[in-house]
Amino acid sequence: MTHPGHSTALMTDQYELTMLDAALADGTAERRCTFEVFARSLPHGRRYGVVAGVDRLLESLARFTFGPEEIRVLCDAGVRDRVAAYLEGHRFSGDVTGYPEGELYFPGSPVLSVTGTFAECVLLETLLLSILNHDCAVASAAARMASAANGRRLIEMGSRRTHEEAAVASARAAYLAGFAATSNLEAHRRYGVPTTGTSAHAFTLLHDTEADAFAAQVDALGVGTTLLVDTYDISRGIETAIEVAGPGLGAIRIDSGDVGVLAQQARAQLDRLGATGTRIVISGDLDEHAIAALRAEPVDAYGVGTSVVTGSGAPAAGMVYKLVEVEGRPVAKRSSSKESRGGAKSAVRRHRPTGTAVEEVVHRLDTPVEVGEHDRVVPVPLVTKGETATDLPTLDESREHLRRGLVAVPWEGLKLSRGEPAIPTTFVP
Amino acid sequence: MTHPGHSTALMTDQYELTMLDAALADGTAERRCTFEVFARSLPHGRRYGVVAGVDRLLESLARFTFGPEEIRVLCDAGVRDRVAAYLEGHRFSGDVTGYPEGELYFPGSPVLSVTGTFAECVLLETLLLSILNHDCAVASAAARMASAANGRRLIEMGSRRTHEEAAVASARAAYLAGFAATSNLEAHRRYGVPTTGTSAHAFTLLHDTEADAFAAQVDALGVGTTLLVDTYDISRGIETAIEVAGPGLGAIRIDSGDVGVLAQQARAQLDRLGATGTRIVISGDLDEHAIAALRAEPVDAYGVGTSVVTGSGAPAAGMVYKLVEVEGRPVAKRSSSKESRGGAKSAVRRHRPTGTAVEEVVHRLDTPVEVGEHDRVVPVPLVTKGETATDLPTLDESREHLRRGLVAVPWEGLKLSRGEPAIPTTFVP
Repeated sequence: MTHPGHSTALMTDQYELTMLDAALADGTAERRCTFEVFARSLPHGRRYGVVAGVDRLLESLARFTFGPEEIRVLCDAGVRDRVAAYLEGHRFSGDVTGYPEGELYFPGSPVLSVTGTFAECVLLETLLLSILNHDCAVASAAARMASAANGRRLIEMGSRRTHEEAAVASARAAYLAGFAATSNLEAHRRYGVPTTGTSAHAFTLLHDTEADAFAAQVDALGVGTTLLVDTYDISRGIETAIEVAGPGLGAIRIDSGDVGVLAQQARAQLDRLGATGTRIVISGDLDEHAIAALRAEPVDAYGVGTSVVTGSGAPAAGMVYKLVEVEGRPVAKRSSSKESRGGAKSAVRRHRPTGTAVEEVVHRLDTPVEVGEHDRVVPVPLVTKGETATDLPTLDESREHLRRGLVAVPWEGLKLSRGEPAIPTTFVP
Repeated sequence: MTHPGHSTALMTDQYELTMLDAALADGTAERRCTFEVFARSLPHGRRYGVVAGVDRLLESLARFTFGPEEIRVLCDAGVRDRVAAYLEGHRFSGDVTGYPEGELYFPGSPVLSVTGTFAECVLLETLLLSILNHDCAVASAAARMASAANGRRLIEMGSRRTHEEAAVASARAAYLAGFAATSNLEAHRRYGVPTTGTSAHAFTLLHDTEADAFAAQVDALGVGTTLLVDTYDISRGIETAIEVAGPGLGAIRIDSGDVGVLAQQARAQLDRLGATGTRIVISGDLDEHAIAALRAEPVDAYGVGTSVVTGSGAPAAGMVYKLVEVEGRPVAKRSSSKESRGGAKSAVRRHRPTGTAVEEVVHRLDTPVEVGEHDRVVPVPLVTKGETATDLPTLDESREHLRRGLVAVPWEGLKLSRGEPAIPTTFVP
């Protein structure tokens, strides 16, 4: 758990409190509402999105409580007595259904539906969107990288390129999406994500010679370690690495330069030196396209930093939180191209008998659709009358759920190039 | 303070611990080292960067301690006894100098210098870089927006588009860079950033009519409030707003559509209705270029979301943490284009007698340069023998420091278009 006991209640935009204030005054605060989280489109011609952060969201929701300190801050920000009175001891007591962690989503998929009074639902907009927009952005980028890596090992090492707390969530989202490990130790503590890491250029520079540095590392970590060979001259570095560690060296890492060519040269050199089992790890400004471009090269693992933790060009998933139903009546904004579809919704993913997904059918709850033998209702109950579901999947189960979901995507839906979503979304009016 | 008592020690890449392990074993852990934080280049042809996060960094550094829980996690991740023994009760006892918060930086500026034993310095890489890469990215984008807004009020409302903790840091960085307020309440609690916010489309949709919603808001918040007029038809919305609130209405907000044209139409309509003092707030997918494009339009304030919290295309500032000196000897990686310059450094910013900045002179500490009457030594002491400086500027003082720093930049350095850095960096060998 993140910071046990720490309230998340102020991770909120002030307008949620001013709306609450006005709605308490005119009696609309108790109207029964459904808000929906969805993405109008996928970023940059992407073909699918990956749901991540649901577990974090539920855990943060449980800590969405207003103690004396939170109330004091709100009063300081100008909130009125009636708001303070409402919030004291407040706890979300409504229902949440949504796409489970590791599920694919498409434009218009009802990723989350939050039902309760206006008062309790409107307060959650910022917190829920922050978590989903961040974690889905990272997982969506990471899944494309895993696809590009085609079974080769991916290591997330981007903590230093993002906010220190976002780094922990990013490590979790990348693991969910198929990365094998992270460099981030806090992600291991909170979520049990496997960690890895050996050394940086600083370790070599600290020593009088590269051979001294390698010897120290091998002494401490064993010959199975990964030696970073590009501090000075790479081919001399590889020679030294094998001299020091022997041909049983676990791996070398190359962090800079024309890594495709360098990987070929390194493989040939290692083989000549008898280190045929020594693996090659490549890092340094890799994204899904660079990883795909290395498919034909003798690379065993990739270390990925900036691009994965910043969503590879799309650092926010574009999710919005919209009021879609009030007292059973569908509602929607109508003034511009940013229209929404009113009404509380669910979704059915249709599949061919072969298991290939063909369509995302989004329908109003009051107009149910047929669920065929090969189809699947996508949203699941997450919170019922304020109580979080107890049968939610573990992180590893969600990881496997995504793996299977991606197998079901039509092959052209896994292409890295820009294009249409992997399957169309059909809205049943 | 962020989560009082919570240790930041595991916001660390595992390789820092494996390096520590090996360095403890061969005795190099105690070598006196200087690590330097700098950016090789500015993102996307930007002309300057803004230092932010120094205060957060110092506060996080004070919480970089290993208690029994942290030690347990490390042992679980495979760290050896000698490392655990070293870390128990560990506290950074070295020196940190750096660019103060709100300072401009340029390619190669020594933004932070960390001096101490290898052991204590190597452990800080991830935490320091996470904070600086995030906060500087946001502040650097926000400063360009403030420049584009040319004195008009900017409101940061991007919390929902970034990780929930990054949102708090973003609100702080945007305020530092010249934004007037944030929507984020936690940023008010932690850093005293002014907050603002009135209502969303959901509040209008909750009510039976737009007039009901406006009346409820005006009743609760007074006629000085901002009414969101684009839920249905904008011109009808403005008419209703003035009917309900009278011509003394504080402001209207338009969140979608062709906002330049809409602002003109809204201004004309408001004036016709006698609401000549009612301000116009524009929001919805604005970035610095959109803000600049609205300069000639009758806009009074901008609400900015996604683009500011994600660094407007550059979500990480590109800062690196490099070992530059070991026991008084300069060291540097040599294998590729990603070269560094060895040696502990300082910087002098040279100015014309008029106050215009002309050059960033970066020099080795052992080769001091002349500091003229109009010049300024940029780095300041931040931590001395483990003790944080007590005379650091407040957030508002740093905000003023940046404002003055930007006034000193040559005019072409404030252009939004891509180009060279505003002033050249000269390295004194």
